[in-house]
Amino acid sequence: MQLEAVVRQLELEQLYTDYVHCLDGDELERWPDFFTEDCFYRITSAENYEAQMPLGLIHATSRNMLKDRVSALREANIYEPQRYRHLVSSLKIVDEQGETLDLVANFIVVRTMQEGDMTVFAVGRYLDRVKHQDGRWKFARKTVVLDSRQIDTLLAIPI
Amino acid sequence: MQLEAVVRQLELEQLYTDYVHCLDGDELERWPDFFTEDCFYRITSAENYEAQMPLGLIHATSRNMLKDRVSALREANIYEPQRYRHLVSSLKIVDEQGETLDLVANFIVVRTMQEGDMTVFAVGRYLDRVKHQDGRWKFARKTVVLDSRQIDTLLAIPI
Amino acid sequence: MQLEAVVRQLELEQLYTDYVHCLDGDELERWPDFFTEDCFYRITSAENYEAQMPLGLIHATSRNMLKDRVSALREANIYEPQRYRHLVSSLKIVDEQGETLDLVANFIVVRTMQEGDMTVFAVGRYLDRVKHQDGRWKFARKTVVLDSRQIDTLLAIPI
Repeated sequence: MQLEAVVRQLELEQLYTDYVHCLDGDELERWPDFFTEDCFYRITSAENYEAQMPLGLIHATSRNMLKDRVSALREANIYEPQRYRHLVSSLKIVDEQGETLDLVANFIVVRTMQEGDMTVFAVGRYLDRVKHQDGRWKFARKTVVLDSRQIDTLLAIPI
Repeated sequence: MQLEAVVRQLELEQLYTDYVHCLDGDELERWPDFFTEDCFYRITSAENYEAQMPLGLIHATSRNMLKDRVSALREANIYEPQRYRHLVSSLKIVDEQGETLDLVANFIVVRTMQEGDMTVFAVGRYLDRVKHQDGRWKFARKTVVLDSRQIDTLLAIPI
Repeated sequence: MQLEAVVRQLELEQLYTDYVHCLDGDELERWPDFFTEDCFYRITSAENYEAQMPLGLIHATSRNMLKDRVSALREANIYEPQRYRHLVSSLKIVDEQGETLDLVANFIVVRTMQEGDMTVFAVGRYLDRVKHQDGRWKFARKTVVLDSRQIDTLLAIPI
């Protein structure tokens, strides 16, 4: 492994680190900033993904749509005192074209209910494309592929 | 990212790696050595943490208090054949003052009972301060913030 | 930490990353390639491991035996629509002899059933020996030590 690859790997891991702390800290207003303006974001199940079914639980084709999503979540104002905790592992560059990289990583999200019950809320893969823009890595595409076809939530939240 | 930052990130990740293998291997006698002499250690819930409630499940203000804690756990001699397994992810430096760093990391702890049942025992964040001392990083402060207000244990154990 | 150690750590982490994506992607035919020809592979429980009981859920003493295992799994042709997702953390070099390294790492595997139920399938440690061979790291020994004595599966699968 070259030093340049080491540095890049660490930078990418920090991108995911920042991303999950943003979500787990419920700082959703910062969430769209992780994406490029013309980004693609989707949450789908492995089953649908493999069957090439286009839609998903969330399907957005621009950063503005992600901002709208956050507004909708805030306005819905559903009293959801749950907490989410992401763990990410096994980040790998699977393809690269100049400063555009395709990545895969595994994740698990544990949800804690107000009374204290903890359950595995979601597990799966991130299938992402990142670009180096304005001195940092941003998601040009993020496909969240859930292993489960079911997700126990009233209103789809970012993962 | 600079090379110096890469090296430091890896050193810090190794600190957490050593820390969790110490706990998971039930080598509690080595546990206080991860801390400075005048350390602060606390386990609390996210709810209490946000409400700035001072106390917690464990609250220690020196390494000697951590040693006392280990002695108490050993003397209690409760037959607890459980095993604990920590996974840590998303370690990030959030502030730095010279050789003193403030860190955050996510964790999950799975407990396995003697009969084989596995459950999510704890999830949450480490909010830590480390110092470089005698050629290695040590915890000057470690605040274990559990997402859940409940923890299913008779006797609070280090996390 | 020296730069050489940083590079090696990242290479080893990538080895585990590749390994788990191979398993989670059900690309079992590629799985034996992660091992040396005269490898040792074993899945056992912590209880048996500590009691130095030799056998385990799987016990193989060559790469060819791993290939046979994969063939058996494919031929059994049991309709098992589960998905497995590994998260690995806290990888550490515990010993080194030239280009042969002894490693430990923690893992959790979450299984998702066809209907969508997610459960913690396995947690434990990898106790591994790797060798640098033909320009890459390979497992000369892999001992999968499960925290639980029970594993809920009809046919033992690679972990």
